[in-house]
Amino acid sequence: MIYYSYENFRDDTRKLIGEVSGFEPEVIVAVARGGLTLAHAMAEGLGIRAVESIRTELYDNDVKREGICIFGECDLLNKKRVLVVDDIADSGDTLEAIMQKLQNDNPQAEFKTATLFYKKTSIHQPDFTVNEAPDWIDFFWERDFK
Amino acid sequence: MIYYSYENFRDDTRKLIGEVSGFEPEVIVAVARGGLTLAHAMAEGLGIRAVESIRTELYDNDVKREGICIFGECDLLNKKRVLVVDDIADSGDTLEAIMQKLQNDNPQAEFKTATLFYKKTSIHQPDFTVNEAPDWIDFFWERDFK
Repeated sequence: MIYYSYENFRDDTRKLIGEVSGFEPEVIVAVARGGLTLAHAMAEGLGIRAVESIRTELYDNDVKREGICIFGECDLLNKKRVLVVDDIADSGDTLEAIMQKLQNDNPQAEFKTATLFYKKTSIHQPDFTVNEAPDWIDFFWERDFK
Repeated sequence: MIYYSYENFRDDTRKLIGEVSGFEPEVIVAVARGGLTLAHAMAEGLGIRAVESIRTELYDNDVKREGICIFGECDLLNKKRVLVVDDIADSGDTLEAIMQKLQNDNPQAEFKTATLFYKKTSIHQPDFTVNEAPDWIDFFWERDFK
């Protein structure tokens, strides 16, 4: 387990901004909650005013299979390049479901993903990322406000 | 002008969480971009998974009057207590426009606002807030990623 401090976050986010800048996104979609602080920082660093958010909830349906329900409509009309931002690609289930929905709803746009951490076993591998994830990460936003 | 560091933010956000907890919000609406990091931290501190976001753009219409255009649909159906979060109530124009739209779209819900800073001259006075604003604030998210 590592404690991921604001200083770690600041340094990694600067790297991520450098990686992403060539893509020139017009809008950032934050995956809530985990991607909110990162999306904010990246939007400031990249000079992007348009930040939207999307969130998911897990549910169990009648036949006991787990599903992902997506909330939050993103207004991406006329947008060509969209960056989807989350803290970590862990199992990758959430990012994969969100990417499918966004691409399906907005066939005109090119979508790319950025995360601070990834796991090699994730079913979605981010286009831009910084660190391979340790077993457990205690992000500062998860610890500092409790 | 003051530089508002992460440490300042952390301490003030803890105070704000203490103030807000009695309201027991079910969902947080972040005003993007300024309210995103605060909304994330407060959602973690209050144990609220449902975070949505809304954003505004200023525009000039034909008769040269400035207006506010609101983007982002919030899914607040069946929600009774909603907390709207922004970094600062400055002129208050944005918060006032957002509160009117949200209350109009969701007459069943009670809305309250939380900000880190307020100005006495703001046309919207937040329900929960921490500091009277100095003339200019350099928030860490505005400086640390450029």
